[in-house]
Amino acid sequence: MAALGVSRSPALDFFPPHKWHSKEQFRSERDTFGDLQVPADRYWGAQTQRSLQNFDIGGPTERLPPPLIKAFGVVKKAASIVNITYGLDPKLGQAIQQAADEVISGKLLDHFPLVVFQTGSGTQSNMNANEVISNRAIEILGGELGSKKPVHPNDHVNMSQSSNDTFPTVMHVAAVTELHKSLIPALTELRDALKAKSEAFDHIIKIGRTHLQDATPLTLGQEFSGYAQQLTNGIDRIHDVLPRLSLLAQGGTAVGTGLNTRRGFDVSIAAEISRLTGLEFKTAPNKFESLAAHDAMVEAHGALNVIACSFMKIANDIRFLGSGPRCGFGELSLPENEPGSSIMPGKVNPTQCEALTMVSAQVIGNQTAISVAGASGQFELNVFKPVIAQNVLRSIRLLADGARSFTKNCVVGIQANEKRINTLLNESLMLATILNSHLGYDNVAKCAKKAHKEGTTLKQATVALGFLTPEEFDEKVRPELMLHPDP
Amino acid sequence: MAALGVSRSPALDFFPPHKWHSKEQFRSERDTFGDLQVPADRYWGAQTQRSLQNFDIGGPTERLPPPLIKAFGVVKKAASIVNITYGLDPKLGQAIQQAADEVISGKLLDHFPLVVFQTGSGTQSNMNANEVISNRAIEILGGELGSKKPVHPNDHVNMSQSSNDTFPTVMHVAAVTELHKSLIPALTELRDALKAKSEAFDHIIKIGRTHLQDATPLTLGQEFSGYAQQLTNGIDRIHDVLPRLSLLAQGGTAVGTGLNTRRGFDVSIAAEISRLTGLEFKTAPNKFESLAAHDAMVEAHGALNVIACSFMKIANDIRFLGSGPRCGFGELSLPENEPGSSIMPGKVNPTQCEALTMVSAQVIGNQTAISVAGASGQFELNVFKPVIAQNVLRSIRLLADGARSFTKNCVVGIQANEKRINTLLNESLMLATILNSHLGYDNVAKCAKKAHKEGTTLKQATVALGFLTPEEFDEKVRPELMLHPDP
Amino acid sequence: MAALGVSRSPALDFFPPHKWHSKEQFRSERDTFGDLQVPADRYWGAQTQRSLQNFDIGGPTERLPPPLIKAFGVVKKAASIVNITYGLDPKLGQAIQQAADEVISGKLLDHFPLVVFQTGSGTQSNMNANEVISNRAIEILGGELGSKKPVHPNDHVNMSQSSNDTFPTVMHVAAVTELHKSLIPALTELRDALKAKSEAFDHIIKIGRTHLQDATPLTLGQEFSGYAQQLTNGIDRIHDVLPRLSLLAQGGTAVGTGLNTRRGFDVSIAAEISRLTGLEFKTAPNKFESLAAHDAMVEAHGALNVIACSFMKIANDIRFLGSGPRCGFGELSLPENEPGSSIMPGKVNPTQCEALTMVSAQVIGNQTAISVAGASGQFELNVFKPVIAQNVLRSIRLLADGARSFTKNCVVGIQANEKRINTLLNESLMLATILNSHLGYDNVAKCAKKAHKEGTTLKQATVALGFLTPEEFDEKVRPELMLHPDP
Amino acid sequence: MAALGVSRSPALDFFPPHKWHSKEQFRSERDTFGDLQVPADRYWGAQTQRSLQNFDIGGPTERLPPPLIKAFGVVKKAASIVNITYGLDPKLGQAIQQAADEVISGKLLDHFPLVVFQTGSGTQSNMNANEVISNRAIEILGGELGSKKPVHPNDHVNMSQSSNDTFPTVMHVAAVTELHKSLIPALTELRDALKAKSEAFDHIIKIGRTHLQDATPLTLGQEFSGYAQQLTNGIDRIHDVLPRLSLLAQGGTAVGTGLNTRRGFDVSIAAEISRLTGLEFKTAPNKFESLAAHDAMVEAHGALNVIACSFMKIANDIRFLGSGPRCGFGELSLPENEPGSSIMPGKVNPTQCEALTMVSAQVIGNQTAISVAGASGQFELNVFKPVIAQNVLRSIRLLADGARSFTKNCVVGIQANEKRINTLLNESLMLATILNSHLGYDNVAKCAKKAHKEGTTLKQATVALGFLTPEEFDEKVRPELMLHPDP
Repeated sequence: MAALGVSRSPALDFFPPHKWHSKEQFRSERDTFGDLQVPADRYWGAQTQRSLQNFDIGGPTERLPPPLIKAFGVVKKAASIVNITYGLDPKLGQAIQQAADEVISGKLLDHFPLVVFQTGSGTQSNMNANEVISNRAIEILGGELGSKKPVHPNDHVNMSQSSNDTFPTVMHVAAVTELHKSLIPALTELRDALKAKSEAFDHIIKIGRTHLQDATPLTLGQEFSGYAQQLTNGIDRIHDVLPRLSLLAQGGTAVGTGLNTRRGFDVSIAAEISRLTGLEFKTAPNKFESLAAHDAMVEAHGALNVIACSFMKIANDIRFLGSGPRCGFGELSLPENEPGSSIMPGKVNPTQCEALTMVSAQVIGNQTAISVAGASGQFELNVFKPVIAQNVLRSIRLLADGARSFTKNCVVGIQANEKRINTLLNESLMLATILNSHLGYDNVAKCAKKAHKEGTTLKQATVALGFLTPEEFDEKVRPELMLHPDP
Repeated sequence: MAALGVSRSPALDFFPPHKWHSKEQFRSERDTFGDLQVPADRYWGAQTQRSLQNFDIGGPTERLPPPLIKAFGVVKKAASIVNITYGLDPKLGQAIQQAADEVISGKLLDHFPLVVFQTGSGTQSNMNANEVISNRAIEILGGELGSKKPVHPNDHVNMSQSSNDTFPTVMHVAAVTELHKSLIPALTELRDALKAKSEAFDHIIKIGRTHLQDATPLTLGQEFSGYAQQLTNGIDRIHDVLPRLSLLAQGGTAVGTGLNTRRGFDVSIAAEISRLTGLEFKTAPNKFESLAAHDAMVEAHGALNVIACSFMKIANDIRFLGSGPRCGFGELSLPENEPGSSIMPGKVNPTQCEALTMVSAQVIGNQTAISVAGASGQFELNVFKPVIAQNVLRSIRLLADGARSFTKNCVVGIQANEKRINTLLNESLMLATILNSHLGYDNVAKCAKKAHKEGTTLKQATVALGFLTPEEFDEKVRPELMLHPDP
Repeated sequence: MAALGVSRSPALDFFPPHKWHSKEQFRSERDTFGDLQVPADRYWGAQTQRSLQNFDIGGPTERLPPPLIKAFGVVKKAASIVNITYGLDPKLGQAIQQAADEVISGKLLDHFPLVVFQTGSGTQSNMNANEVISNRAIEILGGELGSKKPVHPNDHVNMSQSSNDTFPTVMHVAAVTELHKSLIPALTELRDALKAKSEAFDHIIKIGRTHLQDATPLTLGQEFSGYAQQLTNGIDRIHDVLPRLSLLAQGGTAVGTGLNTRRGFDVSIAAEISRLTGLEFKTAPNKFESLAAHDAMVEAHGALNVIACSFMKIANDIRFLGSGPRCGFGELSLPENEPGSSIMPGKVNPTQCEALTMVSAQVIGNQTAISVAGASGQFELNVFKPVIAQNVLRSIRLLADGARSFTKNCVVGIQANEKRINTLLNESLMLATILNSHLGYDNVAKCAKKAHKEGTTLKQATVALGFLTPEEFDEKVRPELMLHPDP
Repeated sequence: MAALGVSRSPALDFFPPHKWHSKEQFRSERDTFGDLQVPADRYWGAQTQRSLQNFDIGGPTERLPPPLIKAFGVVKKAASIVNITYGLDPKLGQAIQQAADEVISGKLLDHFPLVVFQTGSGTQSNMNANEVISNRAIEILGGELGSKKPVHPNDHVNMSQSSNDTFPTVMHVAAVTELHKSLIPALTELRDALKAKSEAFDHIIKIGRTHLQDATPLTLGQEFSGYAQQLTNGIDRIHDVLPRLSLLAQGGTAVGTGLNTRRGFDVSIAAEISRLTGLEFKTAPNKFESLAAHDAMVEAHGALNVIACSFMKIANDIRFLGSGPRCGFGELSLPENEPGSSIMPGKVNPTQCEALTMVSAQVIGNQTAISVAGASGQFELNVFKPVIAQNVLRSIRLLADGARSFTKNCVVGIQANEKRINTLLNESLMLATILNSHLGYDNVAKCAKKAHKEGTTLKQATVALGFLTPEEFDEKVRPELMLHPDP
């Protein structure tokens, strides 16, 4: 089983101590605090190892998420490209870029073991990136791991950078990338699926419900068009937070002044990151704000929070409309993806709705975590960066995965129970509304009250009271006239 | 300048400016910053007036709530009683107590105009209490308002106290009082009403619903017993936060050391407050914690938050069970308290449920506000005291009022639609479960599937398949056997 | 005191029962449930009175806020104007418009007594508006209050409308108006004040702080420029939620279909509302979404939530930088607006910062309330409308008032303690960074370590070690070189 | 298809696809939906596999946490023991217990791959437990994996149980266990460490700070005693939620009635679980409440939320007291665990405080998620169970790990900078307070004002003004007299 690599799974406690009984499996790495043993098959160095030991909080499931690690690759590569123009030895630069590409590809994820709950500047993760890239670049250039030669993690990989500007840059790059590559497509798919249902259900007239009570009719297509509109708006909301989320802190270095970097570095690296990602990034107009506050992340999550609220509404509606099969609303049939109950045909639990509403609850909670963290910057630095990054990226992933799962395993397979919908519509007393102009309010009320009291249909009551013949009733009480404004 | 400032202040918009056109309607009050004009018919002094002018935030609806003001009366009275034993002139002390009694009675509420968003220690409200009580005591003793003689707001009314220990004391006294006098009785009433319904509905067997889907039966009484249990637990939850909420900061003075107070003052005043309120209070074992943190308030609101969650569940269930009248679950009829729709008999909107769930949403939000504020103490003082106090007291009031309204205007009038409940029960296919031991799983599944497919009852399908006679079916498929464990 | 009108203050319990002992002070009003007595000097009718009696939750401080009431005036006036084009008798229409203008002016606020915790559609408040406007219009036209003639609350004032589309329209109109008229100007003032300080402090070089620890220098102006940027972004955030917040539900009527209104009514009324308010509104492209979800309000509050986080950061920084006077950071002097302590000159409590951070805590909490409420729409209607409206409008007011108070009473009066700032800067060891290129890392470290160990300045240590003369040190260690990137 | 689906699933990304190239590495499992391929080396069955494929949401980091899986082992073992007394074949029962013991030990964690965002009842995880235990028991008894013989996952492992009562039981068992075994010990350690510091610092008199401004003195020991008290109260808070958290739903089966279980099963299994865990559990008095609501979990997290607030306060204080080394408060030295800055001796970033405050922000956010989820039960079942469970267990782990890390890597190593503390104390003007009774208020104010204006010490000013000799000053102005109430 170990051969399957499971024991090193990120999801499981890693590096059980008994696995390394011989010295050969470690190598020595050094920082200004001294020497440390690190696993021989890992590229990380002393500062990463020290963080692992000092922040034993939450275990592997609390590691910084892959999109953030990949964004480190992007930023370190871009920095190297720009640094060459400012004098970095191109040979070193190219090795750094090759190593960074491996980080971007995800194949070095196992070399980023640090958890969220570390230093609040994310310095240790920035050093993790520097250490992994420098060691891998050293390896590419034929050097010795841990020697810091010829590629030094600070002097070369971190050149012109500080953790304080790099980490927020990585946060923005990762968030913008995931929004573009994952969430927006997933929301678009869901929107399109809802819209397709809206069109397919356009001819089905059903009872409306306000306050959960029977109300005037609408089409099932109209009902679904509201859901589709929520998604369309959600996509727009994401686009409208990008102006600030795509501004990058890089170039502010330690406190925002740009000390130890070069004039123009900030603009160049933003351009380079745009080129590498194919997404538009710009340098932030004020780096002090970019380091000390993470308002743009709070704002971005605000859009995610709205999407969570939309999901909660849509999934709740759909599961209630699908409730039954006999004792609920029963207007929709949801796809049956797994055994509901072996004894009970038709017992289809709305499990995709359940998953999606749990996603929503989590995202709404994440908003609170991010607001607290985002409000807590102090002087030149907000030191809640990792927890902000993780919550934003977690919410993006959950919403995107949730949307995809809901689309594929629920929405596309929803069927309308037209017979049931029609029965309910005709049993309703709400259609009486349309008779007001024909019979007058008081007479209509008599009909409706009689039907309600006797448990008959409105038609039966109206005919019994002699106001209309059955034919007249059918001619006048036509729900299809109630679906839009009067001309 | 004062007149100017006052007349433009939205915080004063209930003192219409045209009411004061002559100087005679003001008197002069003084603090260490100098003289200020205050309305002649108000007992407050210069520090209150200054706060009114400097904190024009939110207007009258943001004033500190009455229970807090009344608690100031209690604490100032208790302090005066204890201070006499430490040397306060009894004549002054008795006037202070008489004035404090008027604060307790609520008749001086108009003299407490300050809003929540003032100094975070609540110092200005403490001074408001000192100023009002001293001026009223001066009046009682025949002195001149504003003269600070013979009763000085600081030297006599605030004797042995600091705002820093008084305000948190008042917070706890107000919260404990409101929990005891308002919320616990309201919850008990609601619990009793739900329990009465549970007993009244004990004979009504209905379909259960899990995942919103038809499930095995239970009685409507059992369903309501769950709600009653939630309330019983809610009451217990409140009792379980009292051990810490009834600890008082008084005696800690400015930073928790008790400087400027006398040994034993803390114990004596807690005893006196207990006597005056008839509720048990004790002096806090560590005053540093009591001033610098408000964990006990955060904890207390945690219990309120659970009650909000309980309310949301119960009110949601009841409005869904009452949905219809024709196109919903329709198992309950809720009382009709106002016109739903003139044309639609039976359209009873579940408005009490709506009010209660809005209360719940607000209380869940208040939890976040309180957590943020409670987490933000600094060194020897938490300076988010007023906003914590207001949120706790607001949640208590909303939950108590909401519970009372819901009990009176909804729960006691709920009626079971037994015919509908019985129809749904018999239409359900879930009762098949009980035939497993008689016919075997596979045959039962055949019956259920046939009924589902053909839209018939389980009985019809079972008889049609020849597994049972109608009589046998009725004998065996008895929902009343499905309401409890097997013997 | 009663003469002052205090007993009818919105902030106080209104209509003490003892005030009306004679029948003359009431008149009879009627709805479909029957007759009700209402106070003779109020314009409201039976449905309002019924709500007052059925929803005794929270008292006057929980009333729907004035901007929402005023927006009812706007919408009712606009509807009347459009309805005349569809056949409403112009004489009635003009009386309605005149009455609506009085609602807009705020002079009828006392006639809107309903609290948030009523029916979740806000129907009772819509009827309150209809009743007040119709009675006032009746009065204008010389009719009898309560007669519903010649202006009927439903047939004329509510013509072409349903509560279900009117209330969300009013929510959006009120929110957009308050954002434009109150919050954006208040934020702009604060931004400008911070920017002015940033410019005034541009020459003051100070120590930077990251992780709360001494770091490389920046100017005090740069520090304040970050705050100003946060405000600029906050203003942009508000603008970016307007595209959806300015879409109006009006025209959707009961369930979104527009039944009982006329084709084009939705477009016309949006245009009319734009004209009346001078702000841009459009009809919503999908009315089903507008009634059933309030995502636009959740989104708008998301922007408010970010501003709250910005405020928390800025106010925290400023109060810490002003901490002292002797034992804190002491870099800033905040204006002294009220007595801190009579014995302690220089003890200036940062009370404006405290008020502003309490505002922030409340707004962050309101976000949770709104998210819960916004996620809870059901089928064709979200019935958490009033609580959503109140929280958004409360947050807008608190943020706007808080910003104004903070600007006026704190920011504009902030002074830099240049002497203290300079002392700290020179005591710091961080300036050593700049010597790296001159002396080499190891030698610089020696200087810094010696200074740290011996408690001397960096200059003293460097000179003592013989690396530089005092003159050389002063020439090289120049903080002004550390304030920007290298050329 | 199965192989296809599986190999592309992000939820399975720890099973690298290249590992399965041959059919031999899968076996067939079956549920009522048909056959499915599952990895040959995993014990799970068809329902688990189906969930993996249908709920590809969040990936491995979103799996249900280990304590919950282990609690499944406990409950399944206990059920088997009780079931034997009701007729389960002891041979099968013992194999089940042996397999369950392996689940408890954690060695089968890799066989529980399901994520939180699945069906909201946790049915799929309950089936995962049933499938793993039955297959492992089959293996123990020499049978064939997937054959369901002789140990059937439903008939034997799940005997007398439903997911609907088992999952909430497991939630409570896991939460109570983790509170007892992990959080309470961790909090106790932290409390003891803070208390030890409080005692060690008892002699160190320092300036107090209220509103961040210099205030009257206290000892550093007193300051730390407040932190210790917060922890003591936190531990008490946990104990006070246990009365409800230790009530178990088991025995309620599908809807709370106990159908398909035996009278007394509920009491017996609670007793058995108590015996197995060594912790006290009782059967819930009302199973309807236990399935349909999770108020006890919301309440329990309320206690965790308070602890998060306490942590935020304590960690913030400590990092501010340790700020500097030159330009901050500088009263404490925190242990240096990793390089702060190579050039800056004394730059010790308060990284443990940063990690702990990030933990706090997350836990405060989790409260919101849990409140939303806990409020959302419907009829007989709350279907937000997994997300509630995960958030509670995550908060427990983060708080416990955070507390341990903070204790070990920060608190025990904190040192007081007595020289700095003493300098600040003596520079302060606040000590003047004690001279009031000697010199009179006005003269004292003169001294303080002179010192403030001229930047001298209080002593210098007092002597210069001729009020006291230096000796008299030293005799009278003794901070040690200001640390407690007057006798």
